[in-house]
Amino acid sequence: MPRYTAPTKDMQFVLHDVLNVAEQPTPGYEDLEADFTSAILEEAGKLTSEVVAPLNIIGDTEGCKLENGVVRTPTGFKEAFETVKEGGWPGLDMPEQYGGQNMPCVIGTAVGEMFSSANMAFTMYQGLTHGAASAILAHGTNAQKEMYLPKMVSCEWTGTMNLTEPHCGTDLGLMRSKAEPQDDGSYKITGQKIFISAGEHDMADNIIHLVLAKIPGGPDGIKGVSLFIVPKFIIKENGSLGDRNAVAVGKIEEKMGIHGNSTCVMNYDGATGYLLGEAHKGMRAMFTMMNEARLGVGMQGMSQAEVAYQNALDYAKDRLQGRDVTGAQNPEGPADPLIVHPDIRRSLMDQKSFVEGARAFMLWGATLIDAAHRSDDKDADGLVSLLTPVIKGFLSDQGYDMTIKAQQVYGGHGYIEEWGMSQFTRDSRIAMIYEGANGVQALDLVGRKLALDGGKHVMAFFDLVKTFVKENAGQDADFDAQFLEPLKAASKDLQAAGMYFMQNGMKNPNNALSGSYDFMHMFGHVCLGLMWAKMGKAAKVALDNNASDTAFYETKLRTGQYYMARQLPATTLHLSRIQTGADTVMALEVANF
Amino acid sequence: MPRYTAPTKDMQFVLHDVLNVAEQPTPGYEDLEADFTSAILEEAGKLTSEVVAPLNIIGDTEGCKLENGVVRTPTGFKEAFETVKEGGWPGLDMPEQYGGQNMPCVIGTAVGEMFSSANMAFTMYQGLTHGAASAILAHGTNAQKEMYLPKMVSCEWTGTMNLTEPHCGTDLGLMRSKAEPQDDGSYKITGQKIFISAGEHDMADNIIHLVLAKIPGGPDGIKGVSLFIVPKFIIKENGSLGDRNAVAVGKIEEKMGIHGNSTCVMNYDGATGYLLGEAHKGMRAMFTMMNEARLGVGMQGMSQAEVAYQNALDYAKDRLQGRDVTGAQNPEGPADPLIVHPDIRRSLMDQKSFVEGARAFMLWGATLIDAAHRSDDKDADGLVSLLTPVIKGFLSDQGYDMTIKAQQVYGGHGYIEEWGMSQFTRDSRIAMIYEGANGVQALDLVGRKLALDGGKHVMAFFDLVKTFVKENAGQDADFDAQFLEPLKAASKDLQAAGMYFMQNGMKNPNNALSGSYDFMHMFGHVCLGLMWAKMGKAAKVALDNNASDTAFYETKLRTGQYYMARQLPATTLHLSRIQTGADTVMALEVANF
Repeated sequence: MPRYTAPTKDMQFVLHDVLNVAEQPTPGYEDLEADFTSAILEEAGKLTSEVVAPLNIIGDTEGCKLENGVVRTPTGFKEAFETVKEGGWPGLDMPEQYGGQNMPCVIGTAVGEMFSSANMAFTMYQGLTHGAASAILAHGTNAQKEMYLPKMVSCEWTGTMNLTEPHCGTDLGLMRSKAEPQDDGSYKITGQKIFISAGEHDMADNIIHLVLAKIPGGPDGIKGVSLFIVPKFIIKENGSLGDRNAVAVGKIEEKMGIHGNSTCVMNYDGATGYLLGEAHKGMRAMFTMMNEARLGVGMQGMSQAEVAYQNALDYAKDRLQGRDVTGAQNPEGPADPLIVHPDIRRSLMDQKSFVEGARAFMLWGATLIDAAHRSDDKDADGLVSLLTPVIKGFLSDQGYDMTIKAQQVYGGHGYIEEWGMSQFTRDSRIAMIYEGANGVQALDLVGRKLALDGGKHVMAFFDLVKTFVKENAGQDADFDAQFLEPLKAASKDLQAAGMYFMQNGMKNPNNALSGSYDFMHMFGHVCLGLMWAKMGKAAKVALDNNASDTAFYETKLRTGQYYMARQLPATTLHLSRIQTGADTVMALEVANF
Repeated sequence: MPRYTAPTKDMQFVLHDVLNVAEQPTPGYEDLEADFTSAILEEAGKLTSEVVAPLNIIGDTEGCKLENGVVRTPTGFKEAFETVKEGGWPGLDMPEQYGGQNMPCVIGTAVGEMFSSANMAFTMYQGLTHGAASAILAHGTNAQKEMYLPKMVSCEWTGTMNLTEPHCGTDLGLMRSKAEPQDDGSYKITGQKIFISAGEHDMADNIIHLVLAKIPGGPDGIKGVSLFIVPKFIIKENGSLGDRNAVAVGKIEEKMGIHGNSTCVMNYDGATGYLLGEAHKGMRAMFTMMNEARLGVGMQGMSQAEVAYQNALDYAKDRLQGRDVTGAQNPEGPADPLIVHPDIRRSLMDQKSFVEGARAFMLWGATLIDAAHRSDDKDADGLVSLLTPVIKGFLSDQGYDMTIKAQQVYGGHGYIEEWGMSQFTRDSRIAMIYEGANGVQALDLVGRKLALDGGKHVMAFFDLVKTFVKENAGQDADFDAQFLEPLKAASKDLQAAGMYFMQNGMKNPNNALSGSYDFMHMFGHVCLGLMWAKMGKAAKVALDNNASDTAFYETKLRTGQYYMARQLPATTLHLSRIQTGADTVMALEVANF
């Protein structure tokens, strides 16, 4: 069975050596001393590795079963969920007012990575609830907040997001679900929603569905969409559970992965719903959930890469096969371990340098969210809004590729289900698809986010890179050559791509959109390059200050050097593709495909 | 349910416009007139799309069941296999002497692609049989050939390859299976073999296992391995089936994909076996199967990409979602089809340009095999031996990536099993692993094949490219710029990588091996670049000659332009990685990972 060990030391390094969280001005960050965050991370690490992770393969094998309208989750899920609730983990970064612990997002993100690595399907039950609670927190009336949030923050009730219908996913303007206003101010919701994660299950007393639907007579298309709260059980005045609402699970989808999560077809047959936020402004409210979900999905990608890497590394150390061409490393044994082979090293270093860079990127993004929410920092808000599609798209694409590399280390044993490596790839595959398929993320990035506020945020990103390079150049020739020069070159490629879009997208937007996917990936590489430059710098500082754990910091430097030398130069290829524009992409008549 | 349509027109184009098979001097090619090959391809296309393809999703859903030592194949497999046998398809390129039709490999390859696209798991039953029969054909005594081949060529009996044991896959020198010589010249085989495709099933009267084992007292390691024929039922003197041999299926593996093929643990418990080829020369005999199997596995990769692409294309044309940013293309409808979006086009063009290039590469490789076998052309033999790891590794890696892209076009519908897109990715995933994981292919290419015969074959490859460029340059400025210049540049990158290996691999072989995977991919790109240049040229010739189907040839030119502009430049990135050598790859102590 695969194992999971929480990377608390790596997380502490990013939080304290790289991001210096305790010294940031963001309210709440003053508490984030190393001892304090360490205590939380150790506790979460224990829970996730010992309680949550062992259920991962069980969830995959058993899946969720629908019997007489009731969904049964896999063996052990319910008990583990109780343990998670008792520990107060679902409300870690939720307001104290509703029973949460009011931790910053950066801590929620670190802990969230652990949960997601340990068991992605299991973690989605609380993840969806968190998103739904955030939407109610941001858009609900006080009465709604009082009614729903305490139970959702504790996960006594869970939540869902209901967007997709059979004929529309990305293009929600085509939605057919209807919301008929009733005399008492409520609505009757009718329609079918598909792909509803955690849509129905046996681990909570109530399920709070957030449902997009159209109020008849409203504007056409996406502008006529409103968001509704539709509880599985109607809540009475006194807060107790009343009648079963007219919402029922139609079926559970058979999926490639995340079998432990019940992905449901949900049928609303005049179900009672309550408007959340303003009428016809449903997309705005839904985006509160979506943006949070998108960051979470990027994290899912990197989290699966992390756990897959851990197991691939174990296997590469244990499995004896072939000999080191430069001389036997295990002369007493029948063969050397896989890890002596350069091509296995290449694969492991790809994985290691990705997950560590991606983790820094995630946590940095979370500090921006905290600055935006807690300090009302508009620049941080703009920057994280720009980076959201990059985090979602790049980390889920690359995270998936890394699970494939980890699986490959196992050879044939990676293809059979017994070792669990296939599950990591099958589970992580969904991250490239849901919450906006990655092509849609690329479109959001290039078609919308780049130009937002007059391009201010992307300029701010380039300034960040420039400033970092300027402040650190000329002190150490090796660091300059190994970190700063590659970062400068990659950032220059990214700027050149942006320039190409500006110059050529005007006359034909397809010139920009044909390169959007490459742009998202090159942006991701530059972000990871920046993270590695920062981590390399932090490691150097620690070594210069005679830190005791020399090997740890030297390993950071070397892993960063690998990324800079072998991964970051991908920007050049992306740029060259982008600069070919739309001509070859759009050349064929549809009939000639 | 997904559909499959055999790409007969594209195949005819490669066979006749590009490879001019009927004009080649290879014996048997004189029969390959366009009408003749068309008749075969049309017939095979009908069978594969109408009979074989509809069973693909059934095979995935039902899988193979082991009950009381008997393996039950999925519903419909047995009947379809009978139809395939009746048509004589398994013996298409086998000698007439044993009931085959003696077609060249190039025809077997084209037909093989169709079978594999239609149903990879189903086709493996005959594929393994073909490989086993080839090994007996090459290494068996006359008596063995007479005894086994007629029944195997017809697939009345099927075959298997037994290499892997629980503790050894790539490193077969560690093998523990034993073969004790008996007085009658036979051997008693004892040991456990795993991952045995088609190891046991209900579709043939007998199963002929080819099993690697060690004769006690022989040389250590890989040099002490011999190959044995171990029939499931002993064959009596008169050719009828006798006693059940002491070989039994231990279990069927639960796998990520190819569920329709029974992947078995096989237990040999003093089973009667007969030496095939010379004692202790088992690897040589097994390589006859392995080389054939490796080409077949490369084909599996491209074949899954082909069928996945066909379905992604259908979906992109049908599914209405969003609007063309340059203006509505379906103004009467609620939205435009997905195919109007540049990022969807990019994905489809990636897929289309890959599968068509890969098909040409496969078929060209098959002509080299025919030249080697039928004309005893040593140069062709050396060249295809060099290209075998590239065909296996590059086509299976890229083929897999393309199935992922095709799945992505479906959004959430690609993740649920209902649409069949998940199956294409899960099935094709194995092609990167079996018959030598792709890292082993890269090692074979760089560590062995490059230097074979003093590097003669790789020089011959570069000469082929150079000659093509020279013969075609200067006639059309567009063709030069769009096809020949990119091909020259990519080929130059490949040469520079080879040069780097020569200069740096001597002092430290890890400098070469750290770049082996990148080299395999860049070699694959140059091969597809050469194929596209040839296809582009052929299309131009056809257009210049006023061919009637203008759109077909223009589409070829445009698809080639896409590949040259967007895919081939990947060689630059691969080269830059290779030139960083082993330093960053091998920098970490194992303990510090």
